[in-house]
Amino acid sequence: MFKRVLIANRGEIAVRIIRACQELGIETVAVYSEADRNAMHVMLADEAYCIGPAPSKSSYLHIPSLISVATLTGVDAIHPGYGFLSENSDFAEACEACGITFIGPSASAIEAMGDKSIAKTTMKRAGVPTVPGSDGLIQSEEEAIEIARQIGYPVIIKATAGGGGKGIRIVKDEASLRQAVLTSQREAEANFGNGGIYLEKYIERMRHVEIQIMADRHGNVIHLGERDCSVQRRLQKLVEEAPCPVLTEEKREAMGKAAVAAAKAVQYVGAGTIEFIYADNGEFYFMEMNTRIQVEHPVTEWVTGVDLVREMILAAAGEPLSVKQEDIQLKGHAIECRINAEDAYRNFMPSPGTITEYWPPGSIGVRVDSAVYPGYTVPPNYDSMIAKLIVWAPTREQAIMRMRRALSEYRIEGIKTTLPFHAALMENEKFVQGDVTTRFLEENDILPKPMD
Amino acid sequence: MFKRVLIANRGEIAVRIIRACQELGIETVAVYSEADRNAMHVMLADEAYCIGPAPSKSSYLHIPSLISVATLTGVDAIHPGYGFLSENSDFAEACEACGITFIGPSASAIEAMGDKSIAKTTMKRAGVPTVPGSDGLIQSEEEAIEIARQIGYPVIIKATAGGGGKGIRIVKDEASLRQAVLTSQREAEANFGNGGIYLEKYIERMRHVEIQIMADRHGNVIHLGERDCSVQRRLQKLVEEAPCPVLTEEKREAMGKAAVAAAKAVQYVGAGTIEFIYADNGEFYFMEMNTRIQVEHPVTEWVTGVDLVREMILAAAGEPLSVKQEDIQLKGHAIECRINAEDAYRNFMPSPGTITEYWPPGSIGVRVDSAVYPGYTVPPNYDSMIAKLIVWAPTREQAIMRMRRALSEYRIEGIKTTLPFHAALMENEKFVQGDVTTRFLEENDILPKPMD
Repeated sequence: MFKRVLIANRGEIAVRIIRACQELGIETVAVYSEADRNAMHVMLADEAYCIGPAPSKSSYLHIPSLISVATLTGVDAIHPGYGFLSENSDFAEACEACGITFIGPSASAIEAMGDKSIAKTTMKRAGVPTVPGSDGLIQSEEEAIEIARQIGYPVIIKATAGGGGKGIRIVKDEASLRQAVLTSQREAEANFGNGGIYLEKYIERMRHVEIQIMADRHGNVIHLGERDCSVQRRLQKLVEEAPCPVLTEEKREAMGKAAVAAAKAVQYVGAGTIEFIYADNGEFYFMEMNTRIQVEHPVTEWVTGVDLVREMILAAAGEPLSVKQEDIQLKGHAIECRINAEDAYRNFMPSPGTITEYWPPGSIGVRVDSAVYPGYTVPPNYDSMIAKLIVWAPTREQAIMRMRRALSEYRIEGIKTTLPFHAALMENEKFVQGDVTTRFLEENDILPKPMD
Repeated sequence: MFKRVLIANRGEIAVRIIRACQELGIETVAVYSEADRNAMHVMLADEAYCIGPAPSKSSYLHIPSLISVATLTGVDAIHPGYGFLSENSDFAEACEACGITFIGPSASAIEAMGDKSIAKTTMKRAGVPTVPGSDGLIQSEEEAIEIARQIGYPVIIKATAGGGGKGIRIVKDEASLRQAVLTSQREAEANFGNGGIYLEKYIERMRHVEIQIMADRHGNVIHLGERDCSVQRRLQKLVEEAPCPVLTEEKREAMGKAAVAAAKAVQYVGAGTIEFIYADNGEFYFMEMNTRIQVEHPVTEWVTGVDLVREMILAAAGEPLSVKQEDIQLKGHAIECRINAEDAYRNFMPSPGTITEYWPPGSIGVRVDSAVYPGYTVPPNYDSMIAKLIVWAPTREQAIMRMRRALSEYRIEGIKTTLPFHAALMENEKFVQGDVTTRFLEENDILPKPMD
């Protein structure tokens, strides 16, 4: 087993990883930017080193600094968390080149899934359902028009090097397609240094349903059920739950099998997520694979009883999975609310600053993953998520009641947060019914509109 | 269902009950003494009323005040929590006389279990194993000597009206028995107004193993597995866990059945606990029944997934149990540490005062039940328990690692607490091996001895 692990991240996920290491008896080395001197991950790690100024490219994204600290402190492995360098194959390669285990999949698996068009082709070959569309990249406007005629409008153009919702264009008719192809190629080239685009049928009403998988170095791959992440604002997930309120056992099984096939197709190791489009006709299609631990992993942990961060560390160390597919049974219902330092009443405007009072909720069925504390100053430099509030209960109905209770107890003073948004969402009739698509927040006002 | 419930308690259990009511959509009425004006249960309840000065007999034990508030606020039911009036049959009767549901068993069930000698006789008749000893109360020294000769020394004399370890005397030989009988009778008369005593075989090396039961008004009684509460200091439990590390499935089943028989023998309704002596030869004997929710209920909640406080409220309202016996499966392992405002380095001397800094631990597998917050002043008037830290993990070994991690994160400044005791205990080899009896803390120094 690893003796020391470096955590190449900050915030709640860095704290989450430190905790998992401590429970495994592994020493932890934290790194931090100048803006993060007072961060909780710095306090909780056995050692912590400053790696540069606040801008991420000078610290959390700066590979040479990270490798230097890792080498000097003699760590066996690096956990990248999510975001930052977690899906950077160069970083994975740099780690391996220095004899340091990258806690995640191989550089080639990261690469294979990083290029969306290649990933789609790989998935198609592995028998995973994909959205009808172009076979690989589009070479010309004529090709795009031909394919769009076959699959029907609306269609969506995507940049193969894009991701997280960037480089996407929806086209409703042939009149606008030709121009859209040219514009998209130019944008993709400008944004990602790669002008490759592809085209597929645009599915207007969908749920975002994703399957958690876990794989070891011995060829074992299991799936751990799904998460429904349909409540999104501008492609940012705000609430996630497990299981998906509308999925049948049969569909779950089919999606799980497809996800395992997807992981096997790239010799995957560690924790990964296959994101699917779940169309309102009950069909599902591969969307993309996230080759890392995800923000919303706790809901899966709670319904399966499996510690995913622990498991991925063990898998990276060469241990076999601690659970078999037949051991995985989803029990009860878990919901996660992402609490952001944002003013929910003013278009989710970022609200960094000092937390003057902080009381997290507690007791039965409540989990808080956070890196804030009373007196902590949320810096303006990073993602605004400051806490994840997760609840579990035997049924979805009870979990919603519990979330209402927990939200009402949560006190965060000194900054604005998204707590009021979540409190209102938990009272929204459609959400309570489980009747949402990814356009739910566009189509429904959860809080009163901002006055300005 | 109930519309409004009064919580006749304070501290973490009052908060726990308020939370359960909120999750059921029930309005809550809190009561508080003058020492508890700033208590968390006062803040979280929908309404709160002062019922008198700090001494419990003038507030939390003062039945007329409680009934007045209940009547004036129009509550449907009263939850007594634990301690205070929770096992007072007069209070249960007073509630019922006013048309208010007492959330607990009937007054007659409380009474039947409150008199220890009667309870033992009732259990014996119900086929529950009891410790060999006198058949009911002892009438004379001669009778005591005769019985002691039959069962062998050492023997233990208990006051029938005692409880919680009070009124107990261990006798090693015949020479001291006669005097002990007389002294015990006098003490019992003086302390409890009832001189009745009984005698039984003293089991020197035992674990405290108790079975949680739950019963509804429709005749359904289930057991929810056991808790091992052997880590005690002067008969006060400090750490509890579920399941018991040494119990076989067969023995669990036998104890569960005995506990159900015990509950049925007194037409029990609600949450109850049958405490057993678990002798080192594997035999178990009825010790006593607690006719209320217990401090350590969360460990059972976590391994079974059943919300016991919710369930007892529903049962009191006439709902059938939400789970059947065959649904109850123990999953993983849970441990609870009672965090007291006591100086663990100085003989657990009480340490009330103001909490200047308060950071509870969080993330996966960690639950905190507490009623303290930053700036809260722990009053000197009540029980010193200020928080319960509960962890869950798939195995006992992992649960211990998780508890170490959680304890190391817990920051409570301004007062002394038992956190250092628990941290040391989690490193103790015998505890880690599960090799403890109720005399464990007498026989092992967990922390350095106090210097004074």
